[in-house]
Amino acid sequence: MSRAPYVGLSVTSGSRRATAADIVASVQREISSGALPAGSRLPPVRALEKQLGLSKNTAQAAYDELVARGLVEAREREGVFVMAAKTARSIEAPITTPPLPDFVAPALSRPDFTPRGVTNLSTVFIDPELLPTERLSECARSVLREKMPAQYDVQGYQPLREAIAKRLVARGLDVEADHIVVTTGSQQSLDIVARSLSRKKIAIESPVYAYAKLLFENLGHDLVGLPLDPFAGLDLDAWDRALASKPALAYLIPSFHNPTGYSYSSAELRGVLELCAKHGVAILEDDWGSDMLSDGEYRPMLRMLGGRNVLYVNSFTKKLLPSLRIGFVAAPPELVPTLVATKRLSTLGNAWLTEAVVAEFLDRGYYDTHLQHLQRSLDQRYAACLAALDELMPDGVKWTTPGGGPTLWLEIPRTIDLAALEAHLARRNIVVSNKSAAFLGEPNLHGFRIAYAWLAEHEMRAALTILADALRTLG
Amino acid sequence: MSRAPYVGLSVTSGSRRATAADIVASVQREISSGALPAGSRLPPVRALEKQLGLSKNTAQAAYDELVARGLVEAREREGVFVMAAKTARSIEAPITTPPLPDFVAPALSRPDFTPRGVTNLSTVFIDPELLPTERLSECARSVLREKMPAQYDVQGYQPLREAIAKRLVARGLDVEADHIVVTTGSQQSLDIVARSLSRKKIAIESPVYAYAKLLFENLGHDLVGLPLDPFAGLDLDAWDRALASKPALAYLIPSFHNPTGYSYSSAELRGVLELCAKHGVAILEDDWGSDMLSDGEYRPMLRMLGGRNVLYVNSFTKKLLPSLRIGFVAAPPELVPTLVATKRLSTLGNAWLTEAVVAEFLDRGYYDTHLQHLQRSLDQRYAACLAALDELMPDGVKWTTPGGGPTLWLEIPRTIDLAALEAHLARRNIVVSNKSAAFLGEPNLHGFRIAYAWLAEHEMRAALTILADALRTLG
Repeated sequence: MSRAPYVGLSVTSGSRRATAADIVASVQREISSGALPAGSRLPPVRALEKQLGLSKNTAQAAYDELVARGLVEAREREGVFVMAAKTARSIEAPITTPPLPDFVAPALSRPDFTPRGVTNLSTVFIDPELLPTERLSECARSVLREKMPAQYDVQGYQPLREAIAKRLVARGLDVEADHIVVTTGSQQSLDIVARSLSRKKIAIESPVYAYAKLLFENLGHDLVGLPLDPFAGLDLDAWDRALASKPALAYLIPSFHNPTGYSYSSAELRGVLELCAKHGVAILEDDWGSDMLSDGEYRPMLRMLGGRNVLYVNSFTKKLLPSLRIGFVAAPPELVPTLVATKRLSTLGNAWLTEAVVAEFLDRGYYDTHLQHLQRSLDQRYAACLAALDELMPDGVKWTTPGGGPTLWLEIPRTIDLAALEAHLARRNIVVSNKSAAFLGEPNLHGFRIAYAWLAEHEMRAALTILADALRTLG
Repeated sequence: MSRAPYVGLSVTSGSRRATAADIVASVQREISSGALPAGSRLPPVRALEKQLGLSKNTAQAAYDELVARGLVEAREREGVFVMAAKTARSIEAPITTPPLPDFVAPALSRPDFTPRGVTNLSTVFIDPELLPTERLSECARSVLREKMPAQYDVQGYQPLREAIAKRLVARGLDVEADHIVVTTGSQQSLDIVARSLSRKKIAIESPVYAYAKLLFENLGHDLVGLPLDPFAGLDLDAWDRALASKPALAYLIPSFHNPTGYSYSSAELRGVLELCAKHGVAILEDDWGSDMLSDGEYRPMLRMLGGRNVLYVNSFTKKLLPSLRIGFVAAPPELVPTLVATKRLSTLGNAWLTEAVVAEFLDRGYYDTHLQHLQRSLDQRYAACLAALDELMPDGVKWTTPGGGPTLWLEIPRTIDLAALEAHLARRNIVVSNKSAAFLGEPNLHGFRIAYAWLAEHEMRAALTILADALRTLG
């Protein structure tokens, strides 16, 4: 029996005694480096065990692994040889696929995108024509003149936090850059606040921004409803009773409430703060809408009136570009480390590039100029929408007058079935939002949003004409 | 008593009868438009109520609100007058600040950034010098030649999902773009998977990537430990017993395990799949490290061997730029809507710009070129690190030989107190990672990571020299 001579093998090990992994790694490296060309014969198992002082089977395990990886082949009675191909080979034995685990989808699964040719009469987004895409590109190009930095700050890009704090101070808030945590849109602000609460009970307006309600439910919170009627205002006696059940937090949208467009009156702002103080309920204020309102519709924020303990959330999503996904929460300093730690568990940090682009946009003063332009455009669309509603809507239909912003609430007679109306409109290529997920318990309103920020005036008029016809037909 | 004549007021209302908010909004608009100049006297309350057919107090409530907003002033016995300034005024009454709610920080609060002048010997990040910042900037500039699109896709930018799927197919995985959900780093993939599980019990290797363990704990999962010893391999009998407790999911890092650098042998890959099938435990595979290993160290993924039901997570965080925050999960098609819905609740979508930049980088073929360069650099640093350890380390110290990648595990004698060692090194401006959070229960290892990807060869040698001295001093 004549066999090829075997090569010497040097095995590197971190331990006193080489492991199978060490042998595999050493052979691997020698093959990669060319020290062991294809066809080389490795030492027999027993020779290697003796050379390295190994316990039985270690060398055999290493060789089995090398074979499994397709790096060497064992030829019967000839020995173990280095193969030509160096790429890893799949295991050939059939493997039973493990089963899928039990997953549960939150309510409101993937909503449909509005298809081409369909008019969305209820979206909360703003017509991209009104958004500063050119100036944002300009800021991005400017940012890219420097190399992209590799690292990120979990709390958020420092110059962005400074620019945000400066803006908030100019609007009367007592905020510093260190109190701000930048998040992926305002949605992540709500997520990290709700996840950090030790007591899982939150009060929400009803109706309310549906993805906040669903988020809180998904995180296991008990919810308490604070009834909100945009035609009659807040029933603070009912709120008093609801807050007496001691939720940890009240999530409130006092300015341009979503989905109704209602803004709390100054007396209501004060009343709410007093009730929360009375019952020991902290406040999470979502101020998404006030930037989009006309100057005269500005109201002080709860954060301004109630001080640093009010958690204040806002974002640039609707006002600059939805695709930037930049929001933030301003928190009392002692709470910031907790929120940062929760953000780290959820997503670590955010994309540095977009944070820097928004910082540049704010720093150049583009944001204020843009907001003025945006408010003027929204006001025009709002006035045109009101005029069209006045002219077109049948008796029994009413609507809120938010004084600006992106949407109003259209309330229709309860005799008209909402699902039937939706189906009727869908056949005419018009979509309206089903807002049932926005209510806690029985809906106290019967209608949907009208999106004058999204639609140009002529589109709005055309859609409202069809809607009015539908209401007359079904009414 | 002579008083100024009052102006006529036209009130727009969506209802049959005007509300206080309607009156406020109408006055507001007329002031803004200049129809009601400063000094104009408004109708007396009773006159307005009569004009509009209002119930008692509605007009008074509207006037109170207008006064609170600083738009009009009530002069005693003279009437209500439009003021000059149009900006909102803060409420003057002092408001009691509501209390802070009970928040609870997850374990591992904000870690310290490595200060200047300090050598981090244990970080898992890669030296920014090895990362393709110039080419990423180039891709970003190219992407910006188009305007920034306003909208985003919650599942992730379609061309990026296509590019990722194409890469995975080339590596032997049976994946389509529709099966991929893009996330904020791989961390959000872990978050949305763990949040969607209906049964809250997950098996993890011990030790394991600490932020995964903390995340699962934070989400209320019961954890089951799968002991992993990078020097002895997997004790599959112990895994069999652990998996018999029927966790919903096993979270595994089979290739370049964090924090030990261990890669499962081919026999172990098969054994793990068989055990999971036996006990009905699904698999969440975190493949963060294999891209960074030398060609020969590639092993088939569990996703490749076990089929579509294995949830597969990877990211570009370590390999391109940490600041991009782009990761993804590939899931069976029937699970995608659930994961997308959970992502929507947590952050809605991601920043479109960075997703497009990475898509461009992949599309141009830059990623493969970069990985080859990266693997070569890491291999050189790895070999130099092994040589320095061999030369410098005292008896009783051992280390893993991962065959490439960014780090190895250094195991020191148990007679040396880790906290004392950390303090000793800190005085010499060297930081090593405390990995206690990586273990479930009593640590089965006694050491820390060595970061040859982060440190240049001379920095590594200098740091290891100081470490070896410290081990001799404390040993």
